[in-house]
Amino acid sequence: MKRIGMLTSGGDCQALNAAMRGVVKTLDHSKEKVEIYGFLDGYKGLIYSKFQMLTGRDFSGILTKGGTILGTSRTPFKTIQDPDENGLNKVDAMKQNYYKLQLDCLVILGGNGTHKTANLLRQQGLNIVTLPKTIDNDLWGTDMTFGFQSAVNIATDAIDCIHTTASSHGRVFIVEVMGHKVGWLTLNAGMAGGADIILLPEIPYDIDKVVDKIEERDKRGSRFTIIAVAEGAISKEDAALSKKEYKKKLEKRALSSVSYELAAEIQKKTGREVRVTVPGHMQRGGSPCPYDRVFASRLGAEAGRLILDNQYGFMVGYKNREIVKVPLEDVAGKLKMVEPDSTIVQEAKLLGISFGD
Amino acid sequence: MKRIGMLTSGGDCQALNAAMRGVVKTLDHSKEKVEIYGFLDGYKGLIYSKFQMLTGRDFSGILTKGGTILGTSRTPFKTIQDPDENGLNKVDAMKQNYYKLQLDCLVILGGNGTHKTANLLRQQGLNIVTLPKTIDNDLWGTDMTFGFQSAVNIATDAIDCIHTTASSHGRVFIVEVMGHKVGWLTLNAGMAGGADIILLPEIPYDIDKVVDKIEERDKRGSRFTIIAVAEGAISKEDAALSKKEYKKKLEKRALSSVSYELAAEIQKKTGREVRVTVPGHMQRGGSPCPYDRVFASRLGAEAGRLILDNQYGFMVGYKNREIVKVPLEDVAGKLKMVEPDSTIVQEAKLLGISFGD
Amino acid sequence: MKRIGMLTSGGDCQALNAAMRGVVKTLDHSKEKVEIYGFLDGYKGLIYSKFQMLTGRDFSGILTKGGTILGTSRTPFKTIQDPDENGLNKVDAMKQNYYKLQLDCLVILGGNGTHKTANLLRQQGLNIVTLPKTIDNDLWGTDMTFGFQSAVNIATDAIDCIHTTASSHGRVFIVEVMGHKVGWLTLNAGMAGGADIILLPEIPYDIDKVVDKIEERDKRGSRFTIIAVAEGAISKEDAALSKKEYKKKLEKRALSSVSYELAAEIQKKTGREVRVTVPGHMQRGGSPCPYDRVFASRLGAEAGRLILDNQYGFMVGYKNREIVKVPLEDVAGKLKMVEPDSTIVQEAKLLGISFGD
Amino acid sequence: MKRIGMLTSGGDCQALNAAMRGVVKTLDHSKEKVEIYGFLDGYKGLIYSKFQMLTGRDFSGILTKGGTILGTSRTPFKTIQDPDENGLNKVDAMKQNYYKLQLDCLVILGGNGTHKTANLLRQQGLNIVTLPKTIDNDLWGTDMTFGFQSAVNIATDAIDCIHTTASSHGRVFIVEVMGHKVGWLTLNAGMAGGADIILLPEIPYDIDKVVDKIEERDKRGSRFTIIAVAEGAISKEDAALSKKEYKKKLEKRALSSVSYELAAEIQKKTGREVRVTVPGHMQRGGSPCPYDRVFASRLGAEAGRLILDNQYGFMVGYKNREIVKVPLEDVAGKLKMVEPDSTIVQEAKLLGISFGD
Repeated sequence: MKRIGMLTSGGDCQALNAAMRGVVKTLDHSKEKVEIYGFLDGYKGLIYSKFQMLTGRDFSGILTKGGTILGTSRTPFKTIQDPDENGLNKVDAMKQNYYKLQLDCLVILGGNGTHKTANLLRQQGLNIVTLPKTIDNDLWGTDMTFGFQSAVNIATDAIDCIHTTASSHGRVFIVEVMGHKVGWLTLNAGMAGGADIILLPEIPYDIDKVVDKIEERDKRGSRFTIIAVAEGAISKEDAALSKKEYKKKLEKRALSSVSYELAAEIQKKTGREVRVTVPGHMQRGGSPCPYDRVFASRLGAEAGRLILDNQYGFMVGYKNREIVKVPLEDVAGKLKMVEPDSTIVQEAKLLGISFGD
Repeated sequence: MKRIGMLTSGGDCQALNAAMRGVVKTLDHSKEKVEIYGFLDGYKGLIYSKFQMLTGRDFSGILTKGGTILGTSRTPFKTIQDPDENGLNKVDAMKQNYYKLQLDCLVILGGNGTHKTANLLRQQGLNIVTLPKTIDNDLWGTDMTFGFQSAVNIATDAIDCIHTTASSHGRVFIVEVMGHKVGWLTLNAGMAGGADIILLPEIPYDIDKVVDKIEERDKRGSRFTIIAVAEGAISKEDAALSKKEYKKKLEKRALSSVSYELAAEIQKKTGREVRVTVPGHMQRGGSPCPYDRVFASRLGAEAGRLILDNQYGFMVGYKNREIVKVPLEDVAGKLKMVEPDSTIVQEAKLLGISFGD
Repeated sequence: MKRIGMLTSGGDCQALNAAMRGVVKTLDHSKEKVEIYGFLDGYKGLIYSKFQMLTGRDFSGILTKGGTILGTSRTPFKTIQDPDENGLNKVDAMKQNYYKLQLDCLVILGGNGTHKTANLLRQQGLNIVTLPKTIDNDLWGTDMTFGFQSAVNIATDAIDCIHTTASSHGRVFIVEVMGHKVGWLTLNAGMAGGADIILLPEIPYDIDKVVDKIEERDKRGSRFTIIAVAEGAISKEDAALSKKEYKKKLEKRALSSVSYELAAEIQKKTGREVRVTVPGHMQRGGSPCPYDRVFASRLGAEAGRLILDNQYGFMVGYKNREIVKVPLEDVAGKLKMVEPDSTIVQEAKLLGISFGD
Repeated sequence: MKRIGMLTSGGDCQALNAAMRGVVKTLDHSKEKVEIYGFLDGYKGLIYSKFQMLTGRDFSGILTKGGTILGTSRTPFKTIQDPDENGLNKVDAMKQNYYKLQLDCLVILGGNGTHKTANLLRQQGLNIVTLPKTIDNDLWGTDMTFGFQSAVNIATDAIDCIHTTASSHGRVFIVEVMGHKVGWLTLNAGMAGGADIILLPEIPYDIDKVVDKIEERDKRGSRFTIIAVAEGAISKEDAALSKKEYKKKLEKRALSSVSYELAAEIQKKTGREVRVTVPGHMQRGGSPCPYDRVFASRLGAEAGRLILDNQYGFMVGYKNREIVKVPLEDVAGKLKMVEPDSTIVQEAKLLGISFGD
């Protein structure tokens, strides 16, 4: 008999439900008797002992359902060790609830921040298995995260839609893709959507190079230009600022984003009409794509297998087309970024895509 | 033998190509010999005599293609009668080019502004047939316009995506739908996407009623609320302003939009996290949906039939499930708006949707 | 206080759930107290008194869900008046259960067969309100049925997919679309998908005309031909057979369908490779399209309004863009077919589409 | 200056155009002057010297377009060495045309059969670079082929649609997925669509095990069962037949397929209604999914790079997330099959999926 706690933390994404279904189906089809405690709204549920008892039936029919049936919330790692407003030590509270419920392990689905906290709980002696969830595909130790391919599809759809209107009007169009620190999503959606320019956090851009590309296209007779811009895209000038100065600048932007600033600059330098589209939170919503459903189900199944084998302290990841277990301490606190000279960036450049560098 | 000019004007939308294909296929399959002059980028092409000779082959395979193969531009009716920067009288220029090319008629695809200019050209003695293109479905004299249903699909998709993330996080989400003056698109996408609150230009909202609905949902145990907001949604207070005052206010908003203002108010009044999504120009892009393809093809075919019959001065419209011809003077300058007490609004209210009124 | 029975009968389709949600939301938001008895698997549930008590909560979140949460089955009108294998008179059983549960009315969602039985129950004195469900759009008394537009989308998708492969290989492709007696679905999907030939039950085809069209396309340089064929498409020869002879012929076809027969004939007469695709039951599945969601919700809301007004004996239909109530006796037993000389068929012919007639 | 011949051979699939665009964009953006000879309809174009001179412009805007702008045909390897009906030796003809046009190399896009012929041409001394195209993902030497993920999406869509109708009616549904020899497509679509049973060519099934699974589901209260069946799925009995006997059996099946046979057996053994859906050629059609667009573009770019480096005799493949070059002799004539005891099959079993073994 096993008592298993489960929670989803951080921004939601596609295939969270598929992954949990994978874990629970695997446990359900084993000989082991299992009790599942679903903590609500991320770590909060564990801190304040808000949970539901779940059975296999609760996880049936959710393979194609977006979001997470457990709810989620952002509980920043920075503050997880601070006492809450009533003076409750949150880490202690999580440990106490874990032991009070006599849990055998916690299954935690989340991204970077979530993994830092998960590793902290492991250090505190809890049995942890994690699953790599994020549309950013920026988790260290795994080639792929679930949610990513579904988000690529939505962002690409946005670029596809913009393509027809851009070509009809002969305009410059900026499509802002999610990703504050890491550009995988923008890079892939940009390549899939046939963007002419792709601007990533990892490759600071020179506004003049961006303008050059637009004008080169014009000379070739292409009336329009599509620019895929990551939320965290940064100009060479801004990249040269101190962290503090840059943070200040970001605060000034307020509601607006890098895209509007970029649009204004291009408009000024080229005299062309520039339009901005921000699909925003759409990118983490909707039904997971088949790739993510298969991938999350496989990861979930392997997480179930680890639990049945009493192997804890791992993230279930994906390396060289094999499912692997990665020690949590290797994952926490590291980001997998787009290398400016990686093969895929080189290939994008061979295709004529400019990175503004 | 017939010489036919064709142009698409105003914001582009889905099924413009399908409609033109319908006209050309009909002419092509008739016994009449036909020459087609495709004017580029809307009325500009007619003013400056920029055109391409097109054949049936150019219109083959474009049924499913978004945008317009002729290009388009906004040439506001307000300024169409003014001379251009070189002193050229634009209306005279259009007439001259029409007669110089010995055109038998002009086929013009566009929305409201386009129809005002089309009617002006008709008054000047040109033979005109128009087709009702707009994602806003706000053209007078027709129950439906092409582009509308495709835009509903995209806006609904956006709401669907937001639904999963809203329910996972327990947040209030605002989805801003296109439509500055008319709310058909927001109303239909809102109903299709299961929005809880729908705010339209035609029905000024009371912020307190909006807040009430959010809190009523909370009491019922619904953790989230989805609000579909038209670009031109307006509060009761703003609706009471003079036109001049309101215009001033709009100018202040600048890059931002009604949604961000609304979000800030709700956040202040309810203490809840509110997020905004603006699918924007995506709504006019992409491949037309089957409904629009059939509809635009039918309208195009009937426009072809009118031309073969030498019947001019009409928009081809749709009334009570029949294709009809509507005199241009009846169409120009009028908007088809959502009546606040119309059956569809009543039905939406029966379903529990609040309009904030 | 009202006690309402509800059932879905016949082949399932998209937006059944959306329609039921519309009814229940309307009742729920009224002041009336309501009890809902959901009968399982169509009329069977009423006959054998298998039902679940449902509340508003059961209908929440199902707007976008395909199928029917009540289950359905085909209970042919022909046999509904026969006793079952235990000698139970099925009509009597339905009446008894209706009265035993003290129902105020029955809400019945279904197509043609379903409406015949619904009308029979009305004649027996039961209070009935029906909603027009069918992908065939063949119900008398309403311009539109829900499910239809969603099915058009799927069938069109199939033709779109086939288009690319047909043009790559230069083949003749037959896409078989659902519809044994009525061709609305095939006609619309065919027009939307750009089919070159459309064969409908209502317009018997001449195989030589079909072959002519293929060869005419060949001469024009079009390497491929797409034929949209309704399941019930019929050749002129077969249409001349007696009903009995034709039925015999259909029985011989067994697993195969008209498409394979047609493919063989074309292959023989033209020497071309012909391929057949049968999307089949896919056409009634999946999430309803936005059009159907709005439409079914509106119908549901109006059904709710009728119930609150104690108005029974009607199907809620749609005429000239208004929701209307149609006496059940006017609906039952009649089919709304494609008229061979209707405007839409004429328009399709103007576009160059052959009906093989 | 380089003269490059290009052809697509075998069944078409998604992203053929994207891959060719990748090659041509890469060459176009290099300093090398390039002439491109597009051979029409596969090897036939090379044999009979039917080609078009193409430029970068011809490959613009085709990233999202399904099919192949060059056309394709099946030219079986078995017969490629035989003289044609006029006594022309086809291999000699290809060589002669290659030399007559003074080509520097041939870029060949295709699957298994295509690669055998490509390798033969390499052995004859021609410079060859190939790209792995197939929805079957069965090419040796590469982890992935383009077309595969797009086909998974379409087949999964079919299962998704069937899911709603299966659950409404409580039926057993068979969805037949493409794949005569290899089951990757069925395995992935089956897992993504939540199929309960998956039958593959590589894992012969026992009909009794299939029936057991259906009845076990029934006992658990699941009213329906979805079976994903590869075209080449085979029972244990048939797998025990000699090749000759099995071939005979296949011939008898004629128009029908394994699915109809299986349906009949299940119906007989369980008394349940079984329905079959065959999406067929739809699976190779339509616009490529974003994954395939990125993947094919990257492969195309690397093929361009090989050509610029004068490296010939390779297929551009994908191994452990890196683009690699694989000697043609290693690829030709080998199939990459699903191993019955591979990790992914084990994981599917953990999820409760039966393979009937």
